[in-house]
Amino acid sequence: MPDDPVRLGLAGLGTVGVGVIRMVEKNADLLALRAGRRIEISAVSARSRGRDRGVDITKYDWEDDPVALARREDIDIYVELMGGEDGPAKAAVEAAIAAGNHVVTANKALLAIHGQALAEQAEAKAVALRFEAAVAGGIPVVKALTEGLAGNRISRVMGVMNGTCNYILTRMENTGLGYDAVFAEAAELGYLEADPNLDVGGIDAGHKLALLSAIAFGTKVNFSGVDLEGIQQVSVTDIEQASDMGFRIKLLGVAQVTGRGLEQRMQPCLVPVKSALGQLENATNMVVIDGEDVGRIVLRGAGAGQGPTASAVLGDIIDIARGFRITTFGQPATTLAEIQPAQASTPAAFYLRLTLKDAPGILAKVTRALADAGVSIDRMRQYSHEEPAAPVLVVTHKTTRAELDHALSAIKASGVCVRDPVAIRIENV
Amino acid sequence: MPDDPVRLGLAGLGTVGVGVIRMVEKNADLLALRAGRRIEISAVSARSRGRDRGVDITKYDWEDDPVALARREDIDIYVELMGGEDGPAKAAVEAAIAAGNHVVTANKALLAIHGQALAEQAEAKAVALRFEAAVAGGIPVVKALTEGLAGNRISRVMGVMNGTCNYILTRMENTGLGYDAVFAEAAELGYLEADPNLDVGGIDAGHKLALLSAIAFGTKVNFSGVDLEGIQQVSVTDIEQASDMGFRIKLLGVAQVTGRGLEQRMQPCLVPVKSALGQLENATNMVVIDGEDVGRIVLRGAGAGQGPTASAVLGDIIDIARGFRITTFGQPATTLAEIQPAQASTPAAFYLRLTLKDAPGILAKVTRALADAGVSIDRMRQYSHEEPAAPVLVVTHKTTRAELDHALSAIKASGVCVRDPVAIRIENV
Repeated sequence: MPDDPVRLGLAGLGTVGVGVIRMVEKNADLLALRAGRRIEISAVSARSRGRDRGVDITKYDWEDDPVALARREDIDIYVELMGGEDGPAKAAVEAAIAAGNHVVTANKALLAIHGQALAEQAEAKAVALRFEAAVAGGIPVVKALTEGLAGNRISRVMGVMNGTCNYILTRMENTGLGYDAVFAEAAELGYLEADPNLDVGGIDAGHKLALLSAIAFGTKVNFSGVDLEGIQQVSVTDIEQASDMGFRIKLLGVAQVTGRGLEQRMQPCLVPVKSALGQLENATNMVVIDGEDVGRIVLRGAGAGQGPTASAVLGDIIDIARGFRITTFGQPATTLAEIQPAQASTPAAFYLRLTLKDAPGILAKVTRALADAGVSIDRMRQYSHEEPAAPVLVVTHKTTRAELDHALSAIKASGVCVRDPVAIRIENV
Repeated sequence: MPDDPVRLGLAGLGTVGVGVIRMVEKNADLLALRAGRRIEISAVSARSRGRDRGVDITKYDWEDDPVALARREDIDIYVELMGGEDGPAKAAVEAAIAAGNHVVTANKALLAIHGQALAEQAEAKAVALRFEAAVAGGIPVVKALTEGLAGNRISRVMGVMNGTCNYILTRMENTGLGYDAVFAEAAELGYLEADPNLDVGGIDAGHKLALLSAIAFGTKVNFSGVDLEGIQQVSVTDIEQASDMGFRIKLLGVAQVTGRGLEQRMQPCLVPVKSALGQLENATNMVVIDGEDVGRIVLRGAGAGQGPTASAVLGDIIDIARGFRITTFGQPATTLAEIQPAQASTPAAFYLRLTLKDAPGILAKVTRALADAGVSIDRMRQYSHEEPAAPVLVVTHKTTRAELDHALSAIKASGVCVRDPVAIRIENV
């Protein structure tokens, strides 16, 4: 075994940072055996030095400034766990690269926005910039795509990648409580980001999808090209009606290269309750990868939390300690393709929930508007109701979103709706 | 990109070998981009040179002798796809290592029997010996355990790892056909190894489990320590009765380190139909990994077939092309622990099917024998029957296999059975 340890500089001592310290300490001998070198922490940085974190950080050097930490000559790997797409996280990662230190990060926002530039910088300096912990927590999906399945052309990546959203949707289904009540519960339990819109607005999951797209298809990270929709509008009624028809509602990410460009969607979808994605409960994550030769690979595990995320950080650290050198996105950043976002998503069946005036001829207007827009109906039912408005469910045959939107506009314009129609895509998983 | 390609010597041109040739040829540019070097085939070897395989092998050098191929100076990686635990496969792998060539193989039997010696030889010569394709086909599980999850202590690995057995069991359930009829179908479809006992006897899956144990726990590969039981005795009646109680029967591998030693079992088990393992149908494989920090990771995909297995071979080749160097079992072979096989398996509930004489007092004898052996009954029922014998189902509370065997011996000795009792473990997955 080489005598020189791999030395870490750790910025950010929240849940994940503390998890990394715990794993490095308790598994020291095991890590040395596996990595071939000891893994040691040289210095740490965080907002508050004195806070009790349940681990003793006094044995490590302290830096107030993460940029100073990132530049230290006595570290080999700078571990970025502060988060945030700009500010100190970005400055420190840039400083680490400039100083020739490797970087391991769990920061999905930073890489989703600045990944291309940072990867180019890292490759120019021949240092590693790895981010397993940024996507789907403890699931080694970045490694699976960039290494294990690297012999394949990947045709599609799908996944449920925000545990908080899946918790909220599962809980709504199991309790019948509305979105607002369950959201409040999740906040109480500390499941939400400081800015909850990152979770429930689909932004966090969208960051992850954009990173997976890049490594799956060899395209430049394009977060702004992700068609984003959060779960805030999902109602218990929709969950119940979906369930009646054999579906569950999931915040589902789908990325695929189509003839129309790169399609990246992160939005609530109906998926068959019997599918692997439909069976996914609570905060668990799942990624489904379709490869040309390997077929379908499904990976499931905890998508967040101290242990799982720290496990992913350690995986990257061990790789670097072993001397593995791989480009950030699995091929040189300068060779990543610039593919335009698809202007239209792949046609799909849709679930529509309409709340209509309770009067003769109303349903005829709706079916006419759908027919005029070229949207054909697979199933339709008006279900029992107490309020003076008729709730009507429609499942369409496959249609484009444009045709559907055209139909919905016409239905709204015809004055038959008591409330705005709800439309949720049915994903063929 | 370095100008020098990575050159392969490919021995064995069956389904998988042809799959590797196809992937190397059709994905040449993609592989070069990802691996950083071109991947080329220098020479091939197989039993028959002239056979039509649907790929043109005349552009590659031919060797009649795989050992000569393995030793060639114009290859970097020897790819062993002939199979067999001894004979030419072993001789050729040893020759490759001795000549300083890396080795990638799909040969589980070879590594399950000779893995320790071969890994020591490879590490002494500083060449890679990798075997992703040997376990669970296209699922990158060796990589997940030895790399992605390497920061964790692993407490248990479970899995369904023989697609043929899972196909037979699924088909028996779906058609109600007996084992012999479905076995004949599988043979007709070409799903069985030349020696079918490798599949249905659990040997092939046992080889895979022994390899997973080594990388999960850092123990020496110990195939002879695997408690092996095939699926030949599973009847449609057991499948139907299990289903009635909410279970499916799977050929399930379980490996864990216990206070009593290394427990490795590959045997038919009842698993809850709602569990991920219970949902697994046809030839798909699944591996469930429990890690201390990461929690539970589940990996699913095709366990065999041309594309999936070739994909795994390519993953290893790309790693080597990228310059990744990892020990065969994730830590130096000389440091792998020698752990004795557990003399007793972890206690479990068992499903028992008894075929009893139809006479007064018989059931009392059975319950007495169970009670005397310390086996307590969770559920019991006698179900309707046509033949002059009473079929009785018992689900026990948790018990040791020794207590259960003691009870079954006593039941048999008491002369109440028309046929030998059937006992199948219920695995808490």
